[in-house]
Amino acid sequence: MELYSNYTQYLVAVDCIVFGYDIIEKELKLLLIKRSFEPMKGSWSLAGGFVEEMESLDDAASRILRTLTGLERIYLKQSFTYGEKERDPGARVISTAYCALIALRDINKEPAVNSEAHWRSIAGLPDLIFDHSLMVNKALSDLQNQIKAKPVGFELLPEKFTLVQMQELYAAIYQKQIDKRNFRKKILSMGILEKLDEKERETSKKGAYYYKFNKERYEKLEQNGFYFNLDVS
Amino acid sequence: MELYSNYTQYLVAVDCIVFGYDIIEKELKLLLIKRSFEPMKGSWSLAGGFVEEMESLDDAASRILRTLTGLERIYLKQSFTYGEKERDPGARVISTAYCALIALRDINKEPAVNSEAHWRSIAGLPDLIFDHSLMVNKALSDLQNQIKAKPVGFELLPEKFTLVQMQELYAAIYQKQIDKRNFRKKILSMGILEKLDEKERETSKKGAYYYKFNKERYEKLEQNGFYFNLDVS
Repeated sequence: MELYSNYTQYLVAVDCIVFGYDIIEKELKLLLIKRSFEPMKGSWSLAGGFVEEMESLDDAASRILRTLTGLERIYLKQSFTYGEKERDPGARVISTAYCALIALRDINKEPAVNSEAHWRSIAGLPDLIFDHSLMVNKALSDLQNQIKAKPVGFELLPEKFTLVQMQELYAAIYQKQIDKRNFRKKILSMGILEKLDEKERETSKKGAYYYKFNKERYEKLEQNGFYFNLDVS
Repeated sequence: MELYSNYTQYLVAVDCIVFGYDIIEKELKLLLIKRSFEPMKGSWSLAGGFVEEMESLDDAASRILRTLTGLERIYLKQSFTYGEKERDPGARVISTAYCALIALRDINKEPAVNSEAHWRSIAGLPDLIFDHSLMVNKALSDLQNQIKAKPVGFELLPEKFTLVQMQELYAAIYQKQIDKRNFRKKILSMGILEKLDEKERETSKKGAYYYKFNKERYEKLEQNGFYFNLDVS
């Protein structure tokens, strides 16, 4: 029995917007690949691929990310689905974009990217194929909103970080300066950071204490109606 | 030339979560249809359909909504794409859910729904086919978040409304009571409502002034970094 047999079928792809934060260079980066097939072979592209029969959309996004970076358990969320008729000159392809967040310079989970993949600063991205720039702009704008209202920024930092490093992350995502006193006051007042007994001493003689995000504490607060609020943009 | 010809194609559908607010019954409602074909013929379903060759995803959602309600220019936004392998027992179908908001009891744009469509209160929804309950829950939870941070609630109200009516809308969406004084203070302090010279006199002898959402003023404020904030949940 063939149900729905009168309807047209389409290719379905996923494209991954992989943001990586480089705590040393203080830059938000995007993982791009040189496209290895036609159309637009040789151009810059997001990492993507077609959905296989045995995969859900989520599975396909995880596979692409794993193949490209070697990483298994990283933050990966559906962003938006792009379904304009002629978005891909090769054929009609409906593509669901996913957004991944990776802390670069994190020894425990340094991504081992394929040779065709490159990290590029979001401050100077090259032209991308099809509607991939649209996908990046939407994901970045969503990320800018999300880091105000959810503790997703911690996905881009190593396990321990200084308050200055966290502020630099927010400045890199908003691509503008952030007032230090206001930022410290706001993040500390939420009571979701744990101060460690250890200092970061590479960037100043005096040193700066490391902090850790206390996820259990955050989840307990959230259950009691607490809202994460770090609007410093 | 057939590019990408080695890859499997799939059916692609859109499903519409159409919320309507009934200002008289003070209830948020959902538009459901009795499914007229197999599988699961006769069960309750969201309004949906397959994407046709000449349509984008957005076009398909607009078409379904127009066919079902006769309405053209209503709030309609992509919600989320559902791509689990066996979500539809009829065939593999990837479905993008859209969320629409309609003010019921609005004389200027009263929806003329098809005979197979029914408005059901979200307080007592029947079982829905496939993953449609998941779709509704996600869209409702997103709406609950959005009405805090964006002026989308006005899409569910007629052009003029009293503060009590607006508060009742928020209570219906959150499905809980809301403190009147706090609500009035917050909404008025934003300065985006325009008080009219006209009173609603049906619900009380004294009457209550009508207000209008001043969209131009809101947009100007937003450009200057103002944030809509009506967190009364």
